[in-house]
Amino acid sequence: MNIKKQAELAKKAALDLASAKTELKNDALKRIFLAIDKNRNEILEENKKDLKDAEKIGLSGVLVKRLKLDDKKIDDMVKGVKSVISLEDPIGKLLMATELDKSLNLYKISTPIGVIGVIFESRPDALVQISSLCIKSGNAVILKGGSEAKNSNRILFNLIKDAIKENEIFKNSVQLVETRKDVKELLELDDCIDLMIPRGSNALVKYIKENTRIPVLGHSDGICHVYVDEDADIDLALNICFDSKCQYAAVCNAMETMLVHRDVAKEFLPKMKKMFDEENVELRGCDEVLKIIDVEKATEKDWETEYNDLILSIKIVESAKEAIDHVNRYGSHHTDAIITEDADTSNLFLDNVDSSSVMWNCSTRFSDGFRYGLGSEVGISTGKIHARGPVGLEGLVIYKYKLIGNGQIVADYS
Amino acid sequence: MNIKKQAELAKKAALDLASAKTELKNDALKRIFLAIDKNRNEILEENKKDLKDAEKIGLSGVLVKRLKLDDKKIDDMVKGVKSVISLEDPIGKLLMATELDKSLNLYKISTPIGVIGVIFESRPDALVQISSLCIKSGNAVILKGGSEAKNSNRILFNLIKDAIKENEIFKNSVQLVETRKDVKELLELDDCIDLMIPRGSNALVKYIKENTRIPVLGHSDGICHVYVDEDADIDLALNICFDSKCQYAAVCNAMETMLVHRDVAKEFLPKMKKMFDEENVELRGCDEVLKIIDVEKATEKDWETEYNDLILSIKIVESAKEAIDHVNRYGSHHTDAIITEDADTSNLFLDNVDSSSVMWNCSTRFSDGFRYGLGSEVGISTGKIHARGPVGLEGLVIYKYKLIGNGQIVADYS
Repeated sequence: MNIKKQAELAKKAALDLASAKTELKNDALKRIFLAIDKNRNEILEENKKDLKDAEKIGLSGVLVKRLKLDDKKIDDMVKGVKSVISLEDPIGKLLMATELDKSLNLYKISTPIGVIGVIFESRPDALVQISSLCIKSGNAVILKGGSEAKNSNRILFNLIKDAIKENEIFKNSVQLVETRKDVKELLELDDCIDLMIPRGSNALVKYIKENTRIPVLGHSDGICHVYVDEDADIDLALNICFDSKCQYAAVCNAMETMLVHRDVAKEFLPKMKKMFDEENVELRGCDEVLKIIDVEKATEKDWETEYNDLILSIKIVESAKEAIDHVNRYGSHHTDAIITEDADTSNLFLDNVDSSSVMWNCSTRFSDGFRYGLGSEVGISTGKIHARGPVGLEGLVIYKYKLIGNGQIVADYS
Repeated sequence: MNIKKQAELAKKAALDLASAKTELKNDALKRIFLAIDKNRNEILEENKKDLKDAEKIGLSGVLVKRLKLDDKKIDDMVKGVKSVISLEDPIGKLLMATELDKSLNLYKISTPIGVIGVIFESRPDALVQISSLCIKSGNAVILKGGSEAKNSNRILFNLIKDAIKENEIFKNSVQLVETRKDVKELLELDDCIDLMIPRGSNALVKYIKENTRIPVLGHSDGICHVYVDEDADIDLALNICFDSKCQYAAVCNAMETMLVHRDVAKEFLPKMKKMFDEENVELRGCDEVLKIIDVEKATEKDWETEYNDLILSIKIVESAKEAIDHVNRYGSHHTDAIITEDADTSNLFLDNVDSSSVMWNCSTRFSDGFRYGLGSEVGISTGKIHARGPVGLEGLVIYKYKLIGNGQIVADYS
């Protein structure tokens, strides 16, 4: 079947799904987790094929780790689908009601978006997660997984397809495409696909954004900052900066630049360096930093780099205002934190830093849909429209207006 | 000053505007309407220059009508700004609060989007309306008006600029660009501009969408339908169809195709034709229609055409289901109405027609921000993300998350 045909089937399915009852959707989800649970041996067998291929082509350790499934990960998939079942149905909610005139009532009702295109890399578990979220929110979905996970993706997709096809309206609501050529075709289908969600490397997101007229929900860089203010509690700052950098360095919400107020730098930096040294974090500082601790010199390029690694740039600033300006200039509007005991300074930072998540006295690593209690995460968006920051089910929802009258015409109101 | 520089100034202004107090914003708006009111003679003088140029180049009557200002239109501008003042400030609203853990609280707060690019045609009043909405919502705005209104736009822009510059934070928040070459440059600035709003012809909207990576809020076609069901009240249907087509045919929410259930066609169509004949509406029907009334034959192309004129295509259908399928296939997801006395049929239509406005027993001409009580209208969107249908101030708003802790790190939760 060609891609255009698949997209048209998905579009048709989306129209039916839009008014599907919660119970039907939850039943479909239940059949999905049962199928995954029952067929875990087959899933692991298929995954082994991918791992073997990965070995042949010398896939990097990080990617193999993401690719590899085991019983624990399958448990998590099952749990994930169950948690989507437990989420409130986001569709059909009354968002607003206005009486425009006697017997002329306007209602704003939440609806699915329509057809979602999802392009993801490596993790086959993403396929299950995103399919579940789309089913729950009444959207059709076209999935494209990484070729390195093609056997795992195919079996998971087939299990899902078989599990939901029992009910006619779901039959074509989940589609899989497999080749890179397919992606190129998908990106042309702005008459069928309403939203593209790329989940993977920055390079992938950038490629998608530059090659389609379809709106894209995705994140570019994660250049996150922690600013240690003059009124910071030093021990608290040490803990939070360490966690923001070291708890998991390869993720988008890890700290990449640490900003330190001049008045606490002499006390703070040597202690901080000691902690980072134990984790072999490579430090790069501005000239002022170099006067206090012995680290590499940071260049302009460092301030705009997402290392995704155990590397950190450090800059000394004169004020919270300077810290805010630095973050707004070099940051990626993802997640930025201030450490201070002063509420006014904190408010200045939280109000004026233009990022999707701003934090006071806690780790940047908290910015995540799961930790924010959004249920499963659709993705993280660094865009400024529709949905921003960690995006849960609400990112797959829009609305329509229903106007109900009894014969009103505009001529009578003009 | 070059466009890039203007956009950078706007971006900087947007950062300061984001936390501007409601009072400051309303003060700025007040100075704007006072300046417009006081300088109406100069505005009309400049407008005359544009009208003279319009005559020279033989601008069409419709466009001249849009271009021409008079005291009444200036009154409306003043009233428009006043109405924006009276709107609730959409910024800084608490949208959600969650206690993630003891002393770890997450808040979702509404914020401006940032920098809005607005490209509009003909109507100089649009400049005042959109600037007011952007100021109220704390967004910076870059305006590009039609060259046919350049003198009118320039004086209105200068009045606004002078009126608001008293307060430093507004100094660069409204920018004007003037040439077509500027537009091309604007569309490249996806690092400065967060959202483009084209207001004008379909050709304009299409051009913008195809030439920028910046998200676009706009509407493509307005192919609106009225479906006259077998259980319709015939007199009511006649009235509503007449209003939907004839009250103002040149607008996007006017009916372009009328769908009629076979069982009422013989009674309904001759009466309807008589009414349309009086307004010289050109009718085009499917074969079944031709058996009942003497009109031109409609071709496949008619079902997908927005006439924006006194032309109407008519099709006879067997069921509400067929009507719904026709609307979803040929419509533009703008506004579609059903006329019926049967609530179940109505619900089927309202739930399954995938349009931003769906209506029961009233005219499609109601779908409009002003009539929906949204205050001034930012535009109408036929997109499926961020904002759909008539868009008021809320279309210029997004949110940020604030996470407030007292030392929490993710390592303690993993």
